[in-house]
Amino acid sequence: ELQLNLEQIEKGGYDHFMLKEIHEQPTAIKDTYRGRMLPDEGLIRMAGVDDNLERIANAKRILIVACGTSWHAGLVAEYIFEELARIPVEVEYASEFRYRNPIISEKDVIIAISQSGETADTMAAIKLAKEKGAFAFGVCNVVGSSISRETHAGAYTHAGPEIGVASTKAFTTQITVLTLMALKLAKHNGTISNTDFMTYLQEMERIPAKIEKALEGDEHIKMIADIYKDARNCLYLGRGFNFPVALEGALKLKEISYIHAEGYPAAEMKHGPIALIDEEMPVVVIATKKGHYEKVVSNIQEIKSRSGKIIAIVTEGDEEVRDLADHVIEVPETLEPLTPLLTTIPLQLLSYHIAVLLGKNVDQPRNLAKSVTVE
Amino acid sequence: ELQLNLEQIEKGGYDHFMLKEIHEQPTAIKDTYRGRMLPDEGLIRMAGVDDNLERIANAKRILIVACGTSWHAGLVAEYIFEELARIPVEVEYASEFRYRNPIISEKDVIIAISQSGETADTMAAIKLAKEKGAFAFGVCNVVGSSISRETHAGAYTHAGPEIGVASTKAFTTQITVLTLMALKLAKHNGTISNTDFMTYLQEMERIPAKIEKALEGDEHIKMIADIYKDARNCLYLGRGFNFPVALEGALKLKEISYIHAEGYPAAEMKHGPIALIDEEMPVVVIATKKGHYEKVVSNIQEIKSRSGKIIAIVTEGDEEVRDLADHVIEVPETLEPLTPLLTTIPLQLLSYHIAVLLGKNVDQPRNLAKSVTVE
Repeated sequence: ELQLNLEQIEKGGYDHFMLKEIHEQPTAIKDTYRGRMLPDEGLIRMAGVDDNLERIANAKRILIVACGTSWHAGLVAEYIFEELARIPVEVEYASEFRYRNPIISEKDVIIAISQSGETADTMAAIKLAKEKGAFAFGVCNVVGSSISRETHAGAYTHAGPEIGVASTKAFTTQITVLTLMALKLAKHNGTISNTDFMTYLQEMERIPAKIEKALEGDEHIKMIADIYKDARNCLYLGRGFNFPVALEGALKLKEISYIHAEGYPAAEMKHGPIALIDEEMPVVVIATKKGHYEKVVSNIQEIKSRSGKIIAIVTEGDEEVRDLADHVIEVPETLEPLTPLLTTIPLQLLSYHIAVLLGKNVDQPRNLAKSVTVE
Repeated sequence: ELQLNLEQIEKGGYDHFMLKEIHEQPTAIKDTYRGRMLPDEGLIRMAGVDDNLERIANAKRILIVACGTSWHAGLVAEYIFEELARIPVEVEYASEFRYRNPIISEKDVIIAISQSGETADTMAAIKLAKEKGAFAFGVCNVVGSSISRETHAGAYTHAGPEIGVASTKAFTTQITVLTLMALKLAKHNGTISNTDFMTYLQEMERIPAKIEKALEGDEHIKMIADIYKDARNCLYLGRGFNFPVALEGALKLKEISYIHAEGYPAAEMKHGPIALIDEEMPVVVIATKKGHYEKVVSNIQEIKSRSGKIIAIVTEGDEEVRDLADHVIEVPETLEPLTPLLTTIPLQLLSYHIAVLLGKNVDQPRNLAKSVTVE
């Protein structure tokens, strides 16, 4: 068991651990890539990957198993791995994976993502995959945890202790580790040019400062939270790299405010969920530039024409969505596959402020445990 | 364009097309397997599969692309194909698939599922996959539709015209066609024994009568609908083959009653959604025998201990869940991979009755089109 002393667990001037952990993300991400990402040498060094490079780089398929927020990090990783390293990825709910008779071969690599490293279903999935000969790689935050010991290799997120039950910095550091891994495999497999590789490394180094910038939207987001805090339902929409961010944004709101929020890939809205849209249904739309921006703008127009209220996450300086949306929240521009690290921030703050305004117990929401160590 | 004469489109004594189409499912499923499934000869004959048997049976991977309800049929098919034919399957939202740079090879088979055969995103996904050399197979209902013409081969669902915007018989006939295809490939690849193959064929022949039996629950379901019609939110839970059925049940309720319903794999509940549970949140749980029954029972106990209201779909004669749930709806027993064809029925009826009791336009819900032929 992890021993936390009082000094470590103090809230450091913040009202809640969750808020502290949201604000720790620039540092946590730096801690996660420090020593691994060496832009001056044009290198990414990750012991768990380096020691098994051929095995991982030649994977026929990468299977990611996880639960909850970690499952969303896995979905972001799917987009990043396929885009950069060109290895087919499948993401499975650990609970579903373990109870069927999944198709796994010795040529598959299974990645387990778990903040605590103790998630029971994820642990069972890893054991099953190992029995079938797959190479198991763990992405955990807690050093020495069960999953980190059960896997053949792994890479820790160096997020530091996460006390708030609703995961925040664990999520963004999981994405950071998996992005580094994808970049490393991409370079090894020649699916990324050296120039692009260097561009990613340099841009990754700018992410902590850009998160700081996104965090400056706090007061504005709090004001938006105050307007929508009494909503009974909420939709979150995104496309591509930001589709899983929409799922994660909705989960945060569910977890701590008990408002029923649901995430969807934006284009699926027309296949059903749009029937829900009326003036009482706020819709959070991630509409950053490049991410099929025009398509998302057209989704926003459809929602507006049905009297839906729009809160849009946009790229700094955006004018087009600003004219359509009821509220916009800006995040700095970055390379598209890295946008989840920025778009996640305002969604965390939005959930946080709504829950606080509703008087909920933000750090220990009802019914939830920090890590689900039983089935 | 499909020409429908007045006689064809009349409601045949039912109040709504949707109700008529729900009741047509025994016939529609029979029409879909008739001539294809030959239990006396121990054969499944499907021209589109027979003519391309080696190509399909040797697929390195089957990719299923679809939107909305058809995407849910794809998820059911993923479980069935992997279980029976042991071919890895990945299911993608057509809208997400088409806008990234997906990894597809000539050894992949892509299956497009679309009732209308005109779904714009699905059509675009098929074109993209074909450009990359994949073999494209269509599962459409409308004969001569664009997707049926664009694919290399296919199998029609013979559901007859579906007028209600919320898809019902299209869904169950899609599952029927895909199950036949999986069984055929399983037999060809030797991943199913002859005895089991025959058992499936014989059991499939009993499905229409078992759906008739499930439809007899109509009055009881209407009574339950009356109790919960004013709910603002609803959760649907299932595991394994019935996880996608939970998603589809939730989508039906969204589409026609405008109640915010969401589906989840039951074990994920503990990773967030359980925070939503209180006495105002009805939870529909699919808890048929064999389908990890004990695990689902333990999920039900957790919901009860948080004062949630449970509507459980159970196997005929079940006693254990009956003692725990607020309401049970029985469906006949069948082989586990075929349960979605039965568990879907009460969920369709539940949505239908809630929408009617709320005075909604069941056949033409607000904001929705029968087929989404634009992006």
